[in-house]
Amino acid sequence: MSESLLSARNLAFELYEVLDAEALTQRERFAEHSRETFDAAIDTARSIAENLFAPHNRKNDEHEPEYVDGAAVLIPEVKPAVDAFLEAGFLNATRDFETGGMQLPNLLSQACFAHFQSANAATTSYPFLTMGAANLIETFGSEEQKRRFLQPMIDGRFFGTMALTEPHAGSSLSDLRTRAEPAGDGTHRLKGNKIFISGGDHPLSENIVHMVLARLPDAPPGVKGISLFIVPKFLVGDDGSLGKRNDVALAGLFHKMGWRGTTSTALNFGDNGDCVGYLVGKPHHGLSYMFQMMNEARIGVGMGAVMLGYAGYLYSLDYARQRPQGRLPDGKDPSSSQVAIIEHADVRRMLLTQKAYVEGAFDLGLYAARLFDDTQTLATEEERRIALELLDLLTPIVKSWPSEFCLKANELAIQILGGHGYTRDYPVEQYYRDNRLNPIHEGTHGIQSLDLLGRKLSMNGGAALKQLLKLIQASCQQASEYPSLVALRQPLEQLLARLSAVTLALLGDLMGGKVNQGLANSALYLNVFGHMVIGWRWLEQAIKAEQGLAAGNPADADFYQGKLQAARYFLTWEVPGCQHHLALLEARDDCCLSMQDAWF
Amino acid sequence: MSESLLSARNLAFELYEVLDAEALTQRERFAEHSRETFDAAIDTARSIAENLFAPHNRKNDEHEPEYVDGAAVLIPEVKPAVDAFLEAGFLNATRDFETGGMQLPNLLSQACFAHFQSANAATTSYPFLTMGAANLIETFGSEEQKRRFLQPMIDGRFFGTMALTEPHAGSSLSDLRTRAEPAGDGTHRLKGNKIFISGGDHPLSENIVHMVLARLPDAPPGVKGISLFIVPKFLVGDDGSLGKRNDVALAGLFHKMGWRGTTSTALNFGDNGDCVGYLVGKPHHGLSYMFQMMNEARIGVGMGAVMLGYAGYLYSLDYARQRPQGRLPDGKDPSSSQVAIIEHADVRRMLLTQKAYVEGAFDLGLYAARLFDDTQTLATEEERRIALELLDLLTPIVKSWPSEFCLKANELAIQILGGHGYTRDYPVEQYYRDNRLNPIHEGTHGIQSLDLLGRKLSMNGGAALKQLLKLIQASCQQASEYPSLVALRQPLEQLLARLSAVTLALLGDLMGGKVNQGLANSALYLNVFGHMVIGWRWLEQAIKAEQGLAAGNPADADFYQGKLQAARYFLTWEVPGCQHHLALLEARDDCCLSMQDAWF
Repeated sequence: MSESLLSARNLAFELYEVLDAEALTQRERFAEHSRETFDAAIDTARSIAENLFAPHNRKNDEHEPEYVDGAAVLIPEVKPAVDAFLEAGFLNATRDFETGGMQLPNLLSQACFAHFQSANAATTSYPFLTMGAANLIETFGSEEQKRRFLQPMIDGRFFGTMALTEPHAGSSLSDLRTRAEPAGDGTHRLKGNKIFISGGDHPLSENIVHMVLARLPDAPPGVKGISLFIVPKFLVGDDGSLGKRNDVALAGLFHKMGWRGTTSTALNFGDNGDCVGYLVGKPHHGLSYMFQMMNEARIGVGMGAVMLGYAGYLYSLDYARQRPQGRLPDGKDPSSSQVAIIEHADVRRMLLTQKAYVEGAFDLGLYAARLFDDTQTLATEEERRIALELLDLLTPIVKSWPSEFCLKANELAIQILGGHGYTRDYPVEQYYRDNRLNPIHEGTHGIQSLDLLGRKLSMNGGAALKQLLKLIQASCQQASEYPSLVALRQPLEQLLARLSAVTLALLGDLMGGKVNQGLANSALYLNVFGHMVIGWRWLEQAIKAEQGLAAGNPADADFYQGKLQAARYFLTWEVPGCQHHLALLEARDDCCLSMQDAWF
Repeated sequence: MSESLLSARNLAFELYEVLDAEALTQRERFAEHSRETFDAAIDTARSIAENLFAPHNRKNDEHEPEYVDGAAVLIPEVKPAVDAFLEAGFLNATRDFETGGMQLPNLLSQACFAHFQSANAATTSYPFLTMGAANLIETFGSEEQKRRFLQPMIDGRFFGTMALTEPHAGSSLSDLRTRAEPAGDGTHRLKGNKIFISGGDHPLSENIVHMVLARLPDAPPGVKGISLFIVPKFLVGDDGSLGKRNDVALAGLFHKMGWRGTTSTALNFGDNGDCVGYLVGKPHHGLSYMFQMMNEARIGVGMGAVMLGYAGYLYSLDYARQRPQGRLPDGKDPSSSQVAIIEHADVRRMLLTQKAYVEGAFDLGLYAARLFDDTQTLATEEERRIALELLDLLTPIVKSWPSEFCLKANELAIQILGGHGYTRDYPVEQYYRDNRLNPIHEGTHGIQSLDLLGRKLSMNGGAALKQLLKLIQASCQQASEYPSLVALRQPLEQLLARLSAVTLALLGDLMGGKVNQGLANSALYLNVFGHMVIGWRWLEQAIKAEQGLAAGNPADADFYQGKLQAARYFLTWEVPGCQHHLALLEARDDCCLSMQDAWF
């Protein structure tokens, strides 16, 4: 049977050949794990994803949640799937054994999740949002809050949301207006409206814990005046019992292009003046708390984009192998049999492009997940700090690159299926529609590019950038041991050298006060930087493929050849295409910046 | 009020400054026309499109046609819109005065149609398909067929379809299996199944005339054994009265990603052995007849893609002007007002990119329409032949370039609207979904690339290519009179020189028998060739803008500056990006060709 969620061989390649997941079991936190326990978790994830998530992916799309009497109603297939996810322990995959978790590395947790993201992005959102909210409380909440709200989340009884966006403040969080007034008893009363809150209502859990950004009366303006509050749908008594309904109302549902199975809600807080909220951590620190959790959230979004791309790639690959159509240019005899379309060079191009995009981004997402483990479990604080800096730097790429290029992969999957791909009888058009959200939420593409160029590069004197460049150079050095990789290494080295120079120049501009000009072409910069990173990851994969070929298991030869060909495609077809973007960056081209409103 | 369908100023620029539509009135066929009659037709089109087509565009999408008792049921708004289109004479816009037409140039007809395509792609399909079918009968049908089938189509009583695709033969028409047996009385009996037949059933007309490709019993295999038949839904008596239902059954409707308002049907011909068809023209010439009408059809598809891009561009432009969000990088004071998002450099980039794509492709589509007029009305046969060769060469670009890049424009429009753009409360996500069909139907992208590189370039010893290169060189020459255009001309000249050399080399390969290798990267070639053509059209627009600025109407200065900036964007940001593709073509890179099935 062909695989539909992801390639098990490729996942094993990533975990055990590229990223050396087994080495993690040497660390104290993961000492009780082994390749066997890792594989068992993955097998469980695959089985639940295939049997309970994938089957209702289309139905989720066709029967989006309905607003009935102030509540969101979902199709009945969602709850058993989510329950099985909870039952198997994936909600707490990385949590301590002693709190009921599996104490898995983040790398393995992401590898397991990938199956659910591929099978059904919408249903997967509910537990994922809960994990994000739970992590916030775990890291910044009081013991009392953990007891009252976190523990029921860990137990799978309460779900969570992240409530940031307001109608007039999407990307511009500094303009949030939701207010929180002290009630005199240590609690607060919130008032305001939030939109696009995913999972803001549903019947999957006893309670929903909204993590809400709002302003206290004495808040300074801007991002430094935002606080974080727990606002439950139902109040919770000291004994953990559910109390009355809090003053949070579902004002309506948004109807989206895709990702339809996840409710996207408008929530009104405090319409009746009695919306109880609990301050998390210190006043005015809400946004910094959110940002500290952002690496995880953005890895999650990036991997979600990867997996939708992966699902489309595998589907179109299988289709191209089955579907006879036409003949090769040199064999036009109409009485001969038609060939499978995978034989056509242009179909191969579209498949190879998809493979290069999704497997390149898959590798990066898992690499980032492993870095996250390093930030938690490397031996010394210094090592953990270095890992965190690198992860901070890579996060905009991990989030944005798959959102752009795995979406492009979905477009190619539709094209391979032709007229059939355009119908809703096949899944590929839904993959595109679902994936189209990813360049928008959790920081738009534009926001990511500003984050990279305007913040991340210059952090700690550019330490992370230097670290990354060193790693890439080391890979190039290692690649030079393989004659077959010379042609792959060179384009990356050329890009690296020129991008390094341009980066210094742009940072100089920014420090010199030319802020608008320096950031004007940040989207170009993001694209080039992303290609450098993915190009590096492909070179790493190519090195491991050469090592695998040398090890000589004939059953694997085709797999490794495919890796080498995809690496060749990415490094010789895609990476050199960035040179022109570098020229524009070098020239500080102001074509877009100098365009005037009145000229449009 | 902001314009939603297209910019009237830009249309006037195209017609009267770039393409000199008034010169057409010097030709005998258009002698009774003038700028006033042209503008009157355009005003009528805009009014009907705005008032009857645009208002139900979303409803068409939300309430797609339903299959009820063997027939397709549409929303009630479609018929009055189509009736108004017919009533105003647009179905016969280019037809002779004496047969009730407006005898408009094709250029003006396309300019009128553009409004409908922008307003409502799905409803517009019904009359467009009818025009295509009518043109086939008019050109190749017998007098009897014209009387019986064409005249009622001209009168708007019968609609038409093009029935080519079969379940096992999409792009590969040579594998069509539908059979046509002579009935002994000069008619035939057809048997077979067709899929993806747009407009294959609907309640908009008294009858539907299917133009069906099928094989006669003595047909040679392949494309040289395909004949064209008229197969009406209802038989038509000698007196023009409708007879009994023909043996054509609606087997079902396809449910599509977009373009939902147009029925996409599965039709069964001859399930009961009594499907009457009438041979058009000579046996076994069906495909060549279809191909002779293809320029018009493909200009239509290309313009459809342009107009969906245009609609998204104008919507996102208006949104970007209205929507306050965030502050400029050098003005982060949170107590200051938010700026309209059009002030952000990256939003400007996304708007300018859209402008460059849609206005560049709009120009090319109208240029092709004017060329079509030249093929019909230039003074000498020699001149008409030259025009036809050029049109044949450009047609793959006219069809494919907008299908790719105006689709990309739709993606950018969604991005500008952010979370809102992802909801169905705003029209931009539908534009993308509607437009996604265009790279698939009427010859996929891959087919267009093979048509260009494998057929069109070498026709008549490469005469058309030489002609095109001469025209581009002449534009470059003219641009050299304007110092401001030097930087725009150079990238085009560089592309032209290198592409010319590569073209010769590739054609040499093909003639030398290296067919699979020579065509392997045809998609790259199509992309570069397309950018050369659009780059040329932008240079032409820039020249006209300089002339307009020199003429000195201050009210127009902003408009012309916008043209110059978009030309600058396309020629300096996009065109040089093709150099890497040229390098791959020069190297005959076989990365995709040599990829093996087993390696995926």
